[in-house]
Amino acid sequence: KCEIFIGDVPSNDSFVRINVGGQRFMLRKETILRRGVGRLVQLVNQEVDAHSEADAYFRSSNEYYFERAPALFHIIYQFYITGQIHQPSHLCPMDIVEELDYWQIVSEQYLAECCCADIAIKEENDVDEVVKPNLFKTLRFGNIRKQIWDIIEEPASSGKAQVFAALSVLFVLVSISGLVLGSLPELQVPLHSSENSTEIVEMEPLPIIGYVEYVCIVWFTFEYGMKMLVSAERQKTFMQLLNIIDLLAILPFIIEMMLLVFGVSTEQLRDLKGAFLVIRILRVLRVIRVLKLGRYSSGLQMFGKTLKASFRQLGMMAMVVMTGVIFFSTLVYFLEKDEPNSKFHSIPAACWWCIVTMTTVGYGDLTPITVPGKLVATGAIACGVLVLALPITIIVDNFMKVAEGERPHGGGPAPRVRTSGL
Amino acid sequence: KCEIFIGDVPSNDSFVRINVGGQRFMLRKETILRRGVGRLVQLVNQEVDAHSEADAYFRSSNEYYFERAPALFHIIYQFYITGQIHQPSHLCPMDIVEELDYWQIVSEQYLAECCCADIAIKEENDVDEVVKPNLFKTLRFGNIRKQIWDIIEEPASSGKAQVFAALSVLFVLVSISGLVLGSLPELQVPLHSSENSTEIVEMEPLPIIGYVEYVCIVWFTFEYGMKMLVSAERQKTFMQLLNIIDLLAILPFIIEMMLLVFGVSTEQLRDLKGAFLVIRILRVLRVIRVLKLGRYSSGLQMFGKTLKASFRQLGMMAMVVMTGVIFFSTLVYFLEKDEPNSKFHSIPAACWWCIVTMTTVGYGDLTPITVPGKLVATGAIACGVLVLALPITIIVDNFMKVAEGERPHGGGPAPRVRTSGL
Amino acid sequence: KCEIFIGDVPSNDSFVRINVGGQRFMLRKETILRRGVGRLVQLVNQEVDAHSEADAYFRSSNEYYFERAPALFHIIYQFYITGQIHQPSHLCPMDIVEELDYWQIVSEQYLAECCCADIAIKEENDVDEVVKPNLFKTLRFGNIRKQIWDIIEEPASSGKAQVFAALSVLFVLVSISGLVLGSLPELQVPLHSSENSTEIVEMEPLPIIGYVEYVCIVWFTFEYGMKMLVSAERQKTFMQLLNIIDLLAILPFIIEMMLLVFGVSTEQLRDLKGAFLVIRILRVLRVIRVLKLGRYSSGLQMFGKTLKASFRQLGMMAMVVMTGVIFFSTLVYFLEKDEPNSKFHSIPAACWWCIVTMTTVGYGDLTPITVPGKLVATGAIACGVLVLALPITIIVDNFMKVAEGERPHGGGPAPRVRTSGL
Amino acid sequence: KCEIFIGDVPSNDSFVRINVGGQRFMLRKETILRRGVGRLVQLVNQEVDAHSEADAYFRSSNEYYFERAPALFHIIYQFYITGQIHQPSHLCPMDIVEELDYWQIVSEQYLAECCCADIAIKEENDVDEVVKPNLFKTLRFGNIRKQIWDIIEEPASSGKAQVFAALSVLFVLVSISGLVLGSLPELQVPLHSSENSTEIVEMEPLPIIGYVEYVCIVWFTFEYGMKMLVSAERQKTFMQLLNIIDLLAILPFIIEMMLLVFGVSTEQLRDLKGAFLVIRILRVLRVIRVLKLGRYSSGLQMFGKTLKASFRQLGMMAMVVMTGVIFFSTLVYFLEKDEPNSKFHSIPAACWWCIVTMTTVGYGDLTPITVPGKLVATGAIACGVLVLALPITIIVDNFMKVAEGERPHGGGPAPRVRTSGL
Ligand SMILES: [K+]
Ligand SMILES: [K+]
Repeated sequence: KCEIFIGDVPSNDSFVRINVGGQRFMLRKETILRRGVGRLVQLVNQEVDAHSEADAYFRSSNEYYFERAPALFHIIYQFYITGQIHQPSHLCPMDIVEELDYWQIVSEQYLAECCCADIAIKEENDVDEVVKPNLFKTLRFGNIRKQIWDIIEEPASSGKAQVFAALSVLFVLVSISGLVLGSLPELQVPLHSSENSTEIVEMEPLPIIGYVEYVCIVWFTFEYGMKMLVSAERQKTFMQLLNIIDLLAILPFIIEMMLLVFGVSTEQLRDLKGAFLVIRILRVLRVIRVLKLGRYSSGLQMFGKTLKASFRQLGMMAMVVMTGVIFFSTLVYFLEKDEPNSKFHSIPAACWWCIVTMTTVGYGDLTPITVPGKLVATGAIACGVLVLALPITIIVDNFMKVAEGERPHGGGPAPRVRTSGL
Repeated sequence: KCEIFIGDVPSNDSFVRINVGGQRFMLRKETILRRGVGRLVQLVNQEVDAHSEADAYFRSSNEYYFERAPALFHIIYQFYITGQIHQPSHLCPMDIVEELDYWQIVSEQYLAECCCADIAIKEENDVDEVVKPNLFKTLRFGNIRKQIWDIIEEPASSGKAQVFAALSVLFVLVSISGLVLGSLPELQVPLHSSENSTEIVEMEPLPIIGYVEYVCIVWFTFEYGMKMLVSAERQKTFMQLLNIIDLLAILPFIIEMMLLVFGVSTEQLRDLKGAFLVIRILRVLRVIRVLKLGRYSSGLQMFGKTLKASFRQLGMMAMVVMTGVIFFSTLVYFLEKDEPNSKFHSIPAACWWCIVTMTTVGYGDLTPITVPGKLVATGAIACGVLVLALPITIIVDNFMKVAEGERPHGGGPAPRVRTSGL
Repeated sequence: KCEIFIGDVPSNDSFVRINVGGQRFMLRKETILRRGVGRLVQLVNQEVDAHSEADAYFRSSNEYYFERAPALFHIIYQFYITGQIHQPSHLCPMDIVEELDYWQIVSEQYLAECCCADIAIKEENDVDEVVKPNLFKTLRFGNIRKQIWDIIEEPASSGKAQVFAALSVLFVLVSISGLVLGSLPELQVPLHSSENSTEIVEMEPLPIIGYVEYVCIVWFTFEYGMKMLVSAERQKTFMQLLNIIDLLAILPFIIEMMLLVFGVSTEQLRDLKGAFLVIRILRVLRVIRVLKLGRYSSGLQMFGKTLKASFRQLGMMAMVVMTGVIFFSTLVYFLEKDEPNSKFHSIPAACWWCIVTMTTVGYGDLTPITVPGKLVATGAIACGVLVLALPITIIVDNFMKVAEGERPHGGGPAPRVRTSGL
Repeated sequence: KCEIFIGDVPSNDSFVRINVGGQRFMLRKETILRRGVGRLVQLVNQEVDAHSEADAYFRSSNEYYFERAPALFHIIYQFYITGQIHQPSHLCPMDIVEELDYWQIVSEQYLAECCCADIAIKEENDVDEVVKPNLFKTLRFGNIRKQIWDIIEEPASSGKAQVFAALSVLFVLVSISGLVLGSLPELQVPLHSSENSTEIVEMEPLPIIGYVEYVCIVWFTFEYGMKMLVSAERQKTFMQLLNIIDLLAILPFIIEMMLLVFGVSTEQLRDLKGAFLVIRILRVLRVIRVLKLGRYSSGLQMFGKTLKASFRQLGMMAMVVMTGVIFFSTLVYFLEKDEPNSKFHSIPAACWWCIVTMTTVGYGDLTPITVPGKLVATGAIACGVLVLALPITIIVDNFMKVAEGERPHGGGPAPRVRTSGL
């Protein structure tokens, strides 16, 4: 196994001698060939005179000179030995990526799982930036569909698109304002119902608010319809979360329209018990339009991405919290239910108390009265403080990563920051 | 002490010259022999020609060539000098472990306490993965007992075991649902008691809920009984936390059974004052079944392990919080007790207020009224915010370590992550 | 591209051989000249004999010896190759700055964005310390204006200035005390109004408090007036945040004065409905004087700087919180509004509940009663806990940076701390 | 300035050539002498043949061989050049301290402020462990005083001392229990007052509780008296915080004793208005005994040390919070005070609301009703969440440092941990 060299045999032995910026490295040719990738393989495979890969060659010492930082070559050297890229944490990941590029090592396959998260993120982000191919080229009316699509979906593409985006934001804000203002008793009028004698007079927003809302929903429908009409990949577009939100935001309106077409007005439905529930749900669904803001706010998108990235942790946390809630609320229920004036009527009622307590909200609408109940409450609070603190670190970590990825970057070669950026 | 070399005496002096990937290191033979472990010791002990430990040998410079990363050899070099392994924080711990393996240094004994937590954790986790020996082999009916044991305790072992595990989860969930639903007044009926005239009519869950609960408890008893019956190490199995929980979950049922055997029904006991307390405790004990979920949720297990690992910190925190609670509640009690309508009747009552305040829950059922009382309350809040913030960092740290250890890992050589993993 | 050297040609080839503290580095002359900056360029450009830049020159090996730390030279070496300064995170930023100074590289232009935040902050702080030129020299009465300015604005400049600063703090504290004490019912007297018959008797602070307040405001006016009178850059002084606060603090008094000049007393205005609002606003504006404390408290200034530095994150957080608040409060409004005794009268009312809930304050003045409302409340709490936790890490990070910059430092060459300092 | 060497002059030039574990370093003799400290100075000063400082000497290359880790020598090398010790963050501080010891550099004077916090802490802890000289030797009855002192103050010194410490803890716990139990209405009896006709009957704890308390206080007095009697440095002992607490805990008892001596019983004082206040204060002072627990709990001591170390940050935080509280409560007061049923009677009352709100306790005893009031409340909550989050990081950091220092450590050479320890 061990080769023995008696004299100096620099010019034609089994070693490749590499001088990286003055510092010497040695590698056996067989080790390089076993790995089979990178600039050094080409050096070994070439004939003796063709040293085009190196920056200089010193025949007397049989050294190839590469003008690269010695500190970074250690990563390359280690790769040839172990077949894995380990990232020393003190070096800038951008630097390492560039070094791997120079040495012609496609890093993705060789990144060691244990320490290369930074580089992996870098690579992933690069993938995001790949220019999408124009899918409209092969379609009928492709040109005009592309133009409309760009106006609706790519606000940065043209002046028209910017105006369209501004209009969209405006309509969303007006629509939300209409919803909020319409709920103020000062801006409500009694419902124009025929039965004057009923005790509870239902209130309705001022007609003007209703008209404004109709205009907004017409715009939303128009926007959604256009998008669907011109989309090159209709199914993919339809399934995107933001577009599902768009559809849900106009759904109540569409259903009402369809009912009208079939000759049923909402006033008539009000009398039917089952239908009344449908109306209430439709009304609650109006809130979906608030989520349309997500399309226009980078903060909301980052929050959404963080939630997505922390899905597993949030699930685990929810599981632990739920178990804790059921445990403590069952305990408190059994300890408190026989007290006179106890508000712990049932375990679900105690669950509400437990959620409010474990999250330290503490409304005080239900509080334990007995001493054992108070001791259990203390346990629940302690448990809540601990359970909520634990996964937040991980979620905050995910948020930091998302925040880094979102960072707008100019033309510099190394735009991303490793710590504390936003 | 200092050896003096007048000319170049490379081939036969007291030094070992090591060329690690092109970088030169020197060590005195006596230093290596004093340490007495590792690949270099074998190099020194062998005869001159047997260089089988090294990758190459250069006689002209008397150098042994090892094809390893120079950056990592620094750790090995330092070990031979100081006898301790210090871990530079910028290198990947997985890498270091592999390097120590190559140099045949059993790291556990030499890890410096000051900086090798990462490696130590790595080693410890490896120990966990050791395959357990089959304890059933030497027992009577060993084969069938092993089969039943695997079905009950190793869900991943076979299809039958998976079905069994799914059934167990189902029964736990049904049992918890029964407990929760049985507490709803809508699903309760008045107790079939003979004394109609009593003012307070006790309510009981619908009979169907009772029957479901009986079925669940029969299953739990069957499961626990089988496990105990076939266990190879009955005492160890009995003492495991999860099995103690299983036992406690069926205990109320077992006690009731035993009472029935002795001809005593719970209805009769209700009239005895002392026995009534027993019944209440038995009823509260029903909540234990919620903890059975811990067996099936990785989140709960991680939370449990974190609590165990943070035992000392939690104890200290509890001590500080308790002192603070007693201090501030005594103060508030003396300041507030003479106010008309004061709810601070006693120091324990003030303690409840103080816990609720220091944890920032703030129910508002008790609030100080006097100015000195409010000042003390401000101090209590400030103290609470600080005290609770302090050890959480440490506990979160423990949680992160537990989360890393839990991480499922495939066949890769370096599956564990150092930062922010879950 | 690759130069080939057959024999040893140390004395006159295309390489510069650098010996940094014993460790050898090599760079091609063309690479150095391409970069065009730093001590090495001067080395290359000079004639062979003038080695004044280096500490020593070894002709036999054609090496220039520099007595610098080899570990730090890696940064310089990498700069010559890539044109960027990357900062290894394990080295002290102060050290790196000094090393860049030695090698005559003006770091600002070459700092890689990806990893040089620490150095950039260091440079920025240095800029703050530049001595301001004396702007008063060229002005009329420049000398006396400078003296007055120093007394008012530079408390450290002289004993008089210290006395003045102490007086200012005293007057601010007295003025705030007057405001607070004047609100106590015990220190109020009924307004000396002629209409005795009115039901609601307005109360006014004791006359003595009013007099004290007048004295304070006269001082504030005098201080502000003097500052404006002597300022060398009146417009810049006027626009500074602290001076705007000073102006706002005396504005109510000035307006009242002006009204008096025009023969209108506040008592007369009280009867006019529109004017009454003006009086109330003037009264609320009195609170501005509390902010004058910001001039004298380093904690407040750090807090202000942190807010400024975290402007973008706070905006994003506000956006996400607002969306969440509108979403959850609309949901709760629709679910709760038809309950009898519901306090969710309108969406804005529900917004108040939602803010109080999401921040875990939880007054309990409004709480959901229905089960769907409670489920939505649970979602709102979970969302609040997460949303508030996320950007706080970034803001805390900004605070730490601000805290470091504020650190008082003596005459040592490396006064700033990298971690955990304040 | 630049020395030029034409041929190889290794044996007698101005350089010291150092071979650290195979890696070569060079330093000019004048640089070493300018610094004037450490092992290398001795090397330079000695005659040529006396190389006792080095591990080997190679005359052919004029190199001194030191068998030390090359990675650590970089710190020493940099020290000789810049005169400062910079700590690379990836190396273990324990390691660096040992290396500095080997090279005979007394680190304290040369630690660069910018990056050597870890080493500085290490040095400081070492100082704590210095054995105290026996101060009792020169005193009268020194031997017996030392014995008693050890029993009282050094629980680890002997079996008797352990029994004494256990007794002390017991008496503290009994005394606190007495205080708490004595406040329970169930354990109180009406005061044996002669005036039966008074409406408000004052309650007093059961006589048994009073007797227990007397016993405890006698013990405390005995303990404190003995300690003072035998102390070698009475003044220093008197001024220690824990002893001041001890004194305050027995002060009410001592005062009562002295009053009795002068023929005044507390019952007589009760009728005097001024004296009644004194009695109340004396009663409140009883709470001091709770703080005696601090002597026996490491958690409390760590908390105390953290508070002491974070004094500046806590002060700053208090300043910011106070300004915020006054600002927001003044605003809310002016906005809410004219509402019917407003509870914001005065600014101090609003301050209480503001503290409760900014710390997210949220009792709900006072809540703003008007819309501007609610907007201000939202601002106060946001401000509170931010202000409280900011300095906690710093205080937690201080706590971690204190926690590390407290760590019990055995005989190993590197007992302290850098991260996450407790
Ligand atoms: K709360
Ligand atoms: K609350």
